[in-house]
Amino acid sequence: MSLSPLSVRWEAETLLLLDQTQLPHAVVYETLSTRQQVFDAIRGMKVRGAPAIGITAAYGLVVALRANRDLSAENFMQQLRANVDFLSSARPTAVNLFWALNRLARVAELERNQNPEASAIDLWNLLVREAECIHQEDREICAAIARHGQALITPGCGVLTHCNAGSLAVSERGTATAPMYAAHEAGVSFRVYADETRPLLQGARLTAWELSEAGIDVRLICDNMAAYFMAQGDIDLVIVGTDRVAANGDVVNKIGTSGVAILCRHFSIPFYVACPSSTFDSQTETGTDVEIEQRSPDEVRNLNGQGVAPAGVTALNPAFDVTPVQLVSGFITDKGLLRPPFPETLGVLSS
Amino acid sequence: MSLSPLSVRWEAETLLLLDQTQLPHAVVYETLSTRQQVFDAIRGMKVRGAPAIGITAAYGLVVALRANRDLSAENFMQQLRANVDFLSSARPTAVNLFWALNRLARVAELERNQNPEASAIDLWNLLVREAECIHQEDREICAAIARHGQALITPGCGVLTHCNAGSLAVSERGTATAPMYAAHEAGVSFRVYADETRPLLQGARLTAWELSEAGIDVRLICDNMAAYFMAQGDIDLVIVGTDRVAANGDVVNKIGTSGVAILCRHFSIPFYVACPSSTFDSQTETGTDVEIEQRSPDEVRNLNGQGVAPAGVTALNPAFDVTPVQLVSGFITDKGLLRPPFPETLGVLSS
Repeated sequence: MSLSPLSVRWEAETLLLLDQTQLPHAVVYETLSTRQQVFDAIRGMKVRGAPAIGITAAYGLVVALRANRDLSAENFMQQLRANVDFLSSARPTAVNLFWALNRLARVAELERNQNPEASAIDLWNLLVREAECIHQEDREICAAIARHGQALITPGCGVLTHCNAGSLAVSERGTATAPMYAAHEAGVSFRVYADETRPLLQGARLTAWELSEAGIDVRLICDNMAAYFMAQGDIDLVIVGTDRVAANGDVVNKIGTSGVAILCRHFSIPFYVACPSSTFDSQTETGTDVEIEQRSPDEVRNLNGQGVAPAGVTALNPAFDVTPVQLVSGFITDKGLLRPPFPETLGVLSS
Repeated sequence: MSLSPLSVRWEAETLLLLDQTQLPHAVVYETLSTRQQVFDAIRGMKVRGAPAIGITAAYGLVVALRANRDLSAENFMQQLRANVDFLSSARPTAVNLFWALNRLARVAELERNQNPEASAIDLWNLLVREAECIHQEDREICAAIARHGQALITPGCGVLTHCNAGSLAVSERGTATAPMYAAHEAGVSFRVYADETRPLLQGARLTAWELSEAGIDVRLICDNMAAYFMAQGDIDLVIVGTDRVAANGDVVNKIGTSGVAILCRHFSIPFYVACPSSTFDSQTETGTDVEIEQRSPDEVRNLNGQGVAPAGVTALNPAFDVTPVQLVSGFITDKGLLRPPFPETLGVLSS
């Protein structure tokens, strides 16, 4: 049975990154050996998905400091701080990037305080272990989501997903896809309908690719076909990921998610959101408090770099939408499968 | 005030066809002077939309027979029948193609029976008048749809449409777009949201183009963005076209239409269907009796021959869907604006 593809690999102290910009046409793992390569890979979106970016940055910092292991501990710490600053600037809005880099920096500082005799090589080894720890924690979150969601995938069922909350966005197995990989490994036979997810086609390029690589029966559809297959009785449940869940349970996710949730309500199909419990944001009261990123109209006017619309025409490109908590049948998290009534049950996570 | 673009022009006995395969990148009117050119234009989908195909075929037959005006009436009729057969084979499923060609043939045959002295040139002139008559009838249907739907477009409103039921599919003004052109010419200021309509992007390539050519404020969006703009309160009504309406009022139209109708119900937004009364099909009881064309998966996997998904992945491509009559707020037809209760009011049209 194939495993899900890995976005980040750490093998024999070498950092290998799957270049997602070349998917699905070529599967290329690039070895990142210098801080500039790590910076370019993150900035150039060869890696995407908050957890995968955090893991790449952590290993990337380790790689960047490999040549500094002969320095004094003091000079090593200087290099550490310089590299944290440098790598942090690769994508200024990626929260997991700063979080992972700062977590490594704090570990080294704490060790310096507690053990002034620690050498540069001691500190570097500590950073390696911490990066591996971040990686392992992510694997365990995915595994827990898989465990809590697996029973939803019943033999012969059809499950629809939108965008890519898959193994490519995290360390392995993904969030929305985690229950699918688990059910597949357990020998359950089922069908996945992958929305192509315009404008950037993450469903077509990434989800369809990674699920078919794993041997899962996946069928690519255009976003506007979901209602057709629901009306046919082909879809038994929907599982999507999320970028942020507000304190009241409103779900912020890729544009198109709320439309799918409304169709689910119409056809009485369960609509699940899979995410790490860290995605619940107690600082955001409701989904309407989230400012939606408006991206370039060129992404809509073009498809895969080719013009598909009149060059001058106005196009709108909201990147996310808000699915009201009332449309959510359950949250599949590392802490369990939470069902309504919300938001009482969510308070545990968001507080 | 600009007029809507014309798909077919008949000027000084010359047939000019807008080559829609070049839109929106180039606006090219091609002069069709031979039967082979007419055949190739229809087969190559330079013209699309049932009424526009019918009008093109009628003028095309006239053009094809121009060189036969010196023949005997008997030989002219032979040539007529041969050309009807030839042009009918251009697109074997286009009902309007056969309908228009046979209508012209019948007119000539009737004249021959009633007036055995009629010359080839008399018969050819009769065909010209009949083709112009088909064209004029279509113009009048569009004008009547415009008249009956215009009041729905109120100052400042936002109207969403899906696919292209525009002037390019008919003689002028279109069906779904007819009320928009009329309101625009009356000086009403409003916004149109055009779904791009994957996989073949008729909304992006055709609707966005023709409305912006006419100076109407049109905004192109991806199909999965409709719910976002409805939730924002930006959409006040939806108008779509249709390929066929069943006797009970179920609407068969481009894939994605039923999803838009369900979103309208959720957000309490009126959902209108604009069509000639000839679109009501008394032979089809309900929408579920219509077999949905399943087109090539390559249309989903590719765009202009360029892959946007893994080459081998399964893709599904239903070309149409069925919107249940319960989701329709009204039918804007040449015979009036029909509102529920359906199907009582539809019986008038479909019988």
